[in-house]
Amino acid sequence: MTHRPHTTRASLDDTARMTEIPGYSILGRIQQPADLRRLPAEELPHLAVEMRRFLIETLGRVGGHFAANLGTVELSLALHRCFDTPHDRLVWDVGHQAYPHKMLTGRRAQLETIRKFGGLHPFCWRDESEYDTFGVGHSSTSISAAAGMAAGARIKKEKRRVVAVIGDGGMTAGMAYEALNHAGHQKLDMLVVYNDNDMSISENVGALRDRTARLAQRLGLVAPHLTRLPQDDEVNEAHLDDPAALFRTLGFGYHGPVDGHDLGALTRAMEKLRDLPGPHLLHVLTVKGKGFEPAEIDPIKYHGVTQFDPVTGEFPPAKQGGRPSYTQIFGDWLCDAAAKDPRVVGITPAMREGSGLVEFAKRFPDRYHDVGIAEQHAVTLSAGLACEGLRPVCAIYSTFLQRAYDQLIHDVALQNLPVVFALDRGGLVGADGATHHGAFDLSYLRCVPNMVVMAPSDENECRRMFATGLVLNQPSAIRYPRGSGNGTALEADAKPLTIGKGRIVREAHGRRRPRVAFLAFGSMVQTALEAAEILDAVVADMRFVKPLDHELILELANENDLIVTLEDNVKSGGAGSGVNEVLVAQHHTVPALNLGLPDHFVEHGSREELLAQIGLDTAGVLRNVQKRLRARDLDERIARHG
Amino acid sequence: MTHRPHTTRASLDDTARMTEIPGYSILGRIQQPADLRRLPAEELPHLAVEMRRFLIETLGRVGGHFAANLGTVELSLALHRCFDTPHDRLVWDVGHQAYPHKMLTGRRAQLETIRKFGGLHPFCWRDESEYDTFGVGHSSTSISAAAGMAAGARIKKEKRRVVAVIGDGGMTAGMAYEALNHAGHQKLDMLVVYNDNDMSISENVGALRDRTARLAQRLGLVAPHLTRLPQDDEVNEAHLDDPAALFRTLGFGYHGPVDGHDLGALTRAMEKLRDLPGPHLLHVLTVKGKGFEPAEIDPIKYHGVTQFDPVTGEFPPAKQGGRPSYTQIFGDWLCDAAAKDPRVVGITPAMREGSGLVEFAKRFPDRYHDVGIAEQHAVTLSAGLACEGLRPVCAIYSTFLQRAYDQLIHDVALQNLPVVFALDRGGLVGADGATHHGAFDLSYLRCVPNMVVMAPSDENECRRMFATGLVLNQPSAIRYPRGSGNGTALEADAKPLTIGKGRIVREAHGRRRPRVAFLAFGSMVQTALEAAEILDAVVADMRFVKPLDHELILELANENDLIVTLEDNVKSGGAGSGVNEVLVAQHHTVPALNLGLPDHFVEHGSREELLAQIGLDTAGVLRNVQKRLRARDLDERIARHG
Repeated sequence: MTHRPHTTRASLDDTARMTEIPGYSILGRIQQPADLRRLPAEELPHLAVEMRRFLIETLGRVGGHFAANLGTVELSLALHRCFDTPHDRLVWDVGHQAYPHKMLTGRRAQLETIRKFGGLHPFCWRDESEYDTFGVGHSSTSISAAAGMAAGARIKKEKRRVVAVIGDGGMTAGMAYEALNHAGHQKLDMLVVYNDNDMSISENVGALRDRTARLAQRLGLVAPHLTRLPQDDEVNEAHLDDPAALFRTLGFGYHGPVDGHDLGALTRAMEKLRDLPGPHLLHVLTVKGKGFEPAEIDPIKYHGVTQFDPVTGEFPPAKQGGRPSYTQIFGDWLCDAAAKDPRVVGITPAMREGSGLVEFAKRFPDRYHDVGIAEQHAVTLSAGLACEGLRPVCAIYSTFLQRAYDQLIHDVALQNLPVVFALDRGGLVGADGATHHGAFDLSYLRCVPNMVVMAPSDENECRRMFATGLVLNQPSAIRYPRGSGNGTALEADAKPLTIGKGRIVREAHGRRRPRVAFLAFGSMVQTALEAAEILDAVVADMRFVKPLDHELILELANENDLIVTLEDNVKSGGAGSGVNEVLVAQHHTVPALNLGLPDHFVEHGSREELLAQIGLDTAGVLRNVQKRLRARDLDERIARHG
Repeated sequence: MTHRPHTTRASLDDTARMTEIPGYSILGRIQQPADLRRLPAEELPHLAVEMRRFLIETLGRVGGHFAANLGTVELSLALHRCFDTPHDRLVWDVGHQAYPHKMLTGRRAQLETIRKFGGLHPFCWRDESEYDTFGVGHSSTSISAAAGMAAGARIKKEKRRVVAVIGDGGMTAGMAYEALNHAGHQKLDMLVVYNDNDMSISENVGALRDRTARLAQRLGLVAPHLTRLPQDDEVNEAHLDDPAALFRTLGFGYHGPVDGHDLGALTRAMEKLRDLPGPHLLHVLTVKGKGFEPAEIDPIKYHGVTQFDPVTGEFPPAKQGGRPSYTQIFGDWLCDAAAKDPRVVGITPAMREGSGLVEFAKRFPDRYHDVGIAEQHAVTLSAGLACEGLRPVCAIYSTFLQRAYDQLIHDVALQNLPVVFALDRGGLVGADGATHHGAFDLSYLRCVPNMVVMAPSDENECRRMFATGLVLNQPSAIRYPRGSGNGTALEADAKPLTIGKGRIVREAHGRRRPRVAFLAFGSMVQTALEAAEILDAVVADMRFVKPLDHELILELANENDLIVTLEDNVKSGGAGSGVNEVLVAQHHTVPALNLGLPDHFVEHGSREELLAQIGLDTAGVLRNVQKRLRARDLDERIARHG
């Protein structure tokens, strides 16, 4: 019953070259947490300075999650110094703040590869390091995972400390509360470090946050200038009465708040707490962007970056005339729709920036709800609004809607309520990797009765699909990819589409056999068009994943020798599978080829690299179709049917 | 922008015949809440007595959810008396405690039809009554829905009160916390009635419950004997410090506790609170089973009943020699497995009885976790346990796993952790209806990489599938129906199955054309066998929904003229859809017929009635296959291929 070995972990050897780089004399000596534990205490603050500079220099050059990592430098140092990692289990929530942790656990030299194809994973990842005890990416899982580990240690009678580090944003999610309530009841031996920087990706929201912020203000603990914090002998006392009471009610001992940038205070607090029996919570106040002034002033802007000047913080000038992203198309449409229709309400679970709702929030504050990282509530809140005759537009990333699947089925679809889901980041998202790809939505939505599911092939289609959702008297989802489309101009008036009707976007010029028809969905229409040029194939932009255009499918099946379905969703149960179902139901036995995402989790890298890897770029699609065309059954069939 | 009319609502006219039944002289006069509001206050306690007797007599005769409804008699009276329903919105959580509400809103005479095919819905249902403002069934949605209604009233500037009634069991779910945190932040005008009976279906759990129960004990408020409650002038005070603090931290005014069986206290509290601005919570202490001693003593036994003696509470004698349910098969297997393997841990989200874990909880308390109504946490806790080398078996009803879909994908499958999911209530569940059918699991699980999905055709297969899950080094789900199987004897030693291999359970005797092969999944194997007797068809028990047995599928496709897939999951993306995918991938164009649940929500009734309604009983399957066999394409194909 030993810990399962990780056989495929990346090599943990780290070059020592940094010892020779001026300015990193201490950091260069830290290959593993054991090195950190041997370091004289007085060197720790200098190490923190070096780590922060390393983050600024590296991420300014290669990009990545940034501001949150500046906030966790001291926390990471204190945790690895006070706890016997990896024997003691350290679970980072989300993981976008775990770069300092990666740097201290043998991955500093590879940090410049983070989020790149084949490089370090964007978040914690079990197969990457034995110090990554739990894979993360989505928020608010850490307390549950840590509770499982603590329960495991109890069953196995192992002496093992377990620590979860969760932000105040993460604490707005219901599963964090569920985990506290259970761990508190079970009196599990575990520590929750509550990394409170008053921020989610945007400003954090919620009543708990209001209370904490108000009390923090009363105590003069206003970030980013942490002053007048309690002294050491007060560490075990609750200074912020209300949040303390919440955690205490849930069975946790409350400790803090501690200045999360004061290494001495942090280590003293952790040393006091690490061997206390039962569940405890240490409230740590940190500043997102700490130590880099531009990021302290605007942590939202510096949450994730591509490149910046490590001195001034300036970003490279934006390319002129770039295409608007689908996110922007959605945000603009929502503002236009709300201006015309007083029933339109915009809902986001803590993704104002990511979902393109900044402008909407400013212009229509009374009809804007940021509910925190609370997808479940976001969806059922939308259902409640729809019951009152409003037209909620619930903007959730494809991958995060998985959090509210039951609410979508049970509260929205079953009651056939007109909620419009704006599903950003459908398909492969690129650098955020396996946790964030919107790989499953067409499958998990297509099986739900009453749903209308659309996938736009360009920007104007996207706008028309939103307009369609808004006039429907049933729930709908518009699922679009990360990034921009092909630059299609927007019509002044976005007209609703006819439900369940696709369109031919390319006819074949000759009628060379075998005849191929692409039935493409969403962003893959563009790929189909490119492949069709080589194959002289017909291309249908199916527009609707549900309901499918039966008539068009049959027409294409009758007129062609091979039907190729193309989507950036897993093939299992996806849109292509829906086309198969229609063909079967219509007694049609035309040969078909289903192309889509594979039945394994796709890792991180650029969208182009990933599509090439799984054979879903134009070249890969061509290869797959040509291989299929070489199969004997097609020739036989053509010979037979003429 | 008016409230959407409900066009298909059941007739609300109620016969007045009950006025003539001795003992119901007051109840007989209450057709609508308006009648209740006109009733002299001194008659209310007598009405409560009549309602309770009516519940006992009716449900003793026809069965249904019982004990919870005895606890909400006075609460229902007070709410409809103090609030202007249906203009004021009343949202009942779960709805199994809403029978008194149904009785007071024109549905008393139909109560005896509840849960029956064509009868009253088991829970609240928008199309049944304008007083049912939100459809429920799954727990903990009410605060979110009510928040949506309150936000809607604010946007529309309508004067409208909104009340959510949620139990202490429901309050253990994360989405309740998400909703409180948001409503508190938004200062929505709403009242949450916290119906605290210290029970979920089983005893409630969690730290919040521990605190409440402990404080209640201190105050002498130990159910079922509510004594020494605070007096009226104390109603607005918090007597239970800790839960009060939790709700206050989340932005809610805390009021109570109030004796939930004291009509005077309840109405006075509601009258005080109903027009207070902002979010408020009224803590009401009730007794599950109140007024019927056997149910007060054992509320778990009387949670849901089929029949009982209205005087003694005795149940009819159990049928001798009845077949064990799948639930029992699972529970027994889990005990056997845990006795042999110290790594086995059992996890349930508040369904100890329903999931068959009573014996396991007694025998292996150290390896048993009831986490409350917290499916999300249950799954990620299991993932954490698996990280430590344990073998968590997470027992969740199919329909409730929808609540933890993201955790299954992101925390279990992505990390390929060996968690075994015991999915009870797969397929149609019968009387609990649309909210509870396990109609989607094969679709939403089949698309997830790394999952192994099994569906047993009989009891022994079920045991073998669990044994299979336990030896796998990856996640698995065993999905079985409500009720019992065909009575297959259990082998002494349940041997693991070969992954991804099905089996032929019936060969055709003759080789009459067209040749039909059933590819059946789970409980539908039995149906296939019955239909196959008439058709002389081959029947395969596919065993695995994922991975599918490609070899067997091809063999059957080669040897038969029609492939019929048969499952009790929706056809969209289901197991049959998986078979289609395999055929397409293998370039096989054998005609097929996919039979399964339809693309609409199926209501309530007996499993037999529902299967007949949707054509999925043996007769329906035969009808469908015979219709397919009459299609011309099959004759042509046979003529062509010989």
